[in-house]
Amino acid sequence: MEFTFLGTSAGTPTRARNVTGLALRHGSPRHWYLIDCGEGTQHQLLRTRLSVVQLQAIFITHVHGDHTFGLPGLLASASMSGRTAPLPLIGPPQLRPFLETTLANTDSNLGFELQYINSESGDFLWQDDSLRVTSAPLSHRVPCHAFRFEEIRLERKLLTERLMADGIEPGPHWGQLQKGHDVCLANGRLVRAADYTTIPRPPRRVVVAGDNDTPELLTGACQDAHLLIHEATYTQAVADRVGPWPRHSSAKQVASFAMRVNLPYLILTHFSSRYQSGGSRGPVIEDIAAEARDAYSGGLHLARDYQRYRLDRDLILREVDE
Amino acid sequence: MEFTFLGTSAGTPTRARNVTGLALRHGSPRHWYLIDCGEGTQHQLLRTRLSVVQLQAIFITHVHGDHTFGLPGLLASASMSGRTAPLPLIGPPQLRPFLETTLANTDSNLGFELQYINSESGDFLWQDDSLRVTSAPLSHRVPCHAFRFEEIRLERKLLTERLMADGIEPGPHWGQLQKGHDVCLANGRLVRAADYTTIPRPPRRVVVAGDNDTPELLTGACQDAHLLIHEATYTQAVADRVGPWPRHSSAKQVASFAMRVNLPYLILTHFSSRYQSGGSRGPVIEDIAAEARDAYSGGLHLARDYQRYRLDRDLILREVDE
Repeated sequence: MEFTFLGTSAGTPTRARNVTGLALRHGSPRHWYLIDCGEGTQHQLLRTRLSVVQLQAIFITHVHGDHTFGLPGLLASASMSGRTAPLPLIGPPQLRPFLETTLANTDSNLGFELQYINSESGDFLWQDDSLRVTSAPLSHRVPCHAFRFEEIRLERKLLTERLMADGIEPGPHWGQLQKGHDVCLANGRLVRAADYTTIPRPPRRVVVAGDNDTPELLTGACQDAHLLIHEATYTQAVADRVGPWPRHSSAKQVASFAMRVNLPYLILTHFSSRYQSGGSRGPVIEDIAAEARDAYSGGLHLARDYQRYRLDRDLILREVDE
Repeated sequence: MEFTFLGTSAGTPTRARNVTGLALRHGSPRHWYLIDCGEGTQHQLLRTRLSVVQLQAIFITHVHGDHTFGLPGLLASASMSGRTAPLPLIGPPQLRPFLETTLANTDSNLGFELQYINSESGDFLWQDDSLRVTSAPLSHRVPCHAFRFEEIRLERKLLTERLMADGIEPGPHWGQLQKGHDVCLANGRLVRAADYTTIPRPPRRVVVAGDNDTPELLTGACQDAHLLIHEATYTQAVADRVGPWPRHSSAKQVASFAMRVNLPYLILTHFSSRYQSGGSRGPVIEDIAAEARDAYSGGLHLARDYQRYRLDRDLILREVDE
């Protein structure tokens, strides 16, 4: 599971950070998923190896422009680059009138089907061959959800001693069993994969939150999760000065929550454009890092644009630097 | 009059070129106008000195996404940066449902009035303190217009010998006359600015075209113009191979037209993304330059992103390199 941050700024882009977009690569080597799509997301993709032709689905946490205004351009470019495969678009119901009106009034015709899936329905669950995705409601100025990604169809290990002990000799059916398929032997005997294989590790589970002023709402979703990616728009001091209206989280809030629920890894993103890189005279991004580090002793990262992180099968999160 | 190219690629962005956007600075030092607004235009502006707070009007040649998808984000960012002054938005009537639906479905509220002005009405004319703008219909897959910008209120030169000969002595009324105001002297005599001043140079006139496969449609608009900015999506060989469907111009078509109507300066832009910079193995942007140079002996430029050109009062077009 590899994450590429395509934008890490809140509200408006800066010279160093675009507005929100996050790519999750998983499953087949080139398959990937997009979570949120601020303006310029397709531009950011030009500097990665990700292709909109291989995009498996788009997830949108909420309708605000800094998370959605890149959709029309990304979809139009996908069409121009020859995409024909249907594309699931999972998000709030307002995405449909927004996109349908935009495409109709700009003479844009997509060469593929856009499958609108409402993430706000109470029983939301989406899955494909590689991932099972559920959602959790957050607290923001508009309805907003976190998505929890859990890998499925993990590789199985054959219980060879048990197979041999039960007289099931090596052959092509071993390969079928390892893929999780039950097989019927030549003698008519049904052999179940569940009886002769084991899954030697837990599935990786990652929660990607949208804008949110109440991290505690993710207590259930973060149960057994290995990584939380959450906004930290301000430090607590700035959040107190700004007041509650924007309904964002401070670094302290998110970090304290992550500590309380015992999360192994936390990546913070969606920083107010007032935070500059080191050397600036104004507030700096290191203020957010320091505040989070005070409250959380797990693996902490502050996302930068184009930074990649890989959550490996050993459940260790590593920065990818090539 | 200073032009800054914010995007020079057709259809989709490349790593070196964004989709269409052009800034025209004129009048007060920080006043400027935007012509077309592809996705990422607000990002490009971050690398210029132009501020959306000082933006006087937006002109849109046609509704295609590579000329319009940057509008919602640019307008939202203008609002977030504190703009309150009304903003004229001059373009096709479909801009209104596109923007109103987008803003309504993304919880976006602008802190200023957007004044929709239909550029397709037969008697279109727009002017402010510095510019008079008219339009000319083009030929493309959707209705598309060129805008012709002509400066107004040019600086006047006092005819001092005539003033003295007629017994009008120096005083504050000389300043009024020079500004073009008629004055009434202490003795009751009305002195007309038109009689005692002259405008020593012609107004600068620039035509900025949208997408178009028939440059000849600009014959009238280019009458007396000093500069034409026009798309040249392909070379003629590529245009012939692509066929007429996209309804774009070749370099040869535009350059031949500019030669025929005796235009002093021509800037080509909106290049197909197949054209790369020199050193590439595919078609290169120099192919377009060579083809245009063959047909046109005036001042020819091929626009690059962030390149600035100044059309000075002496009617010379200069690249600005600071």
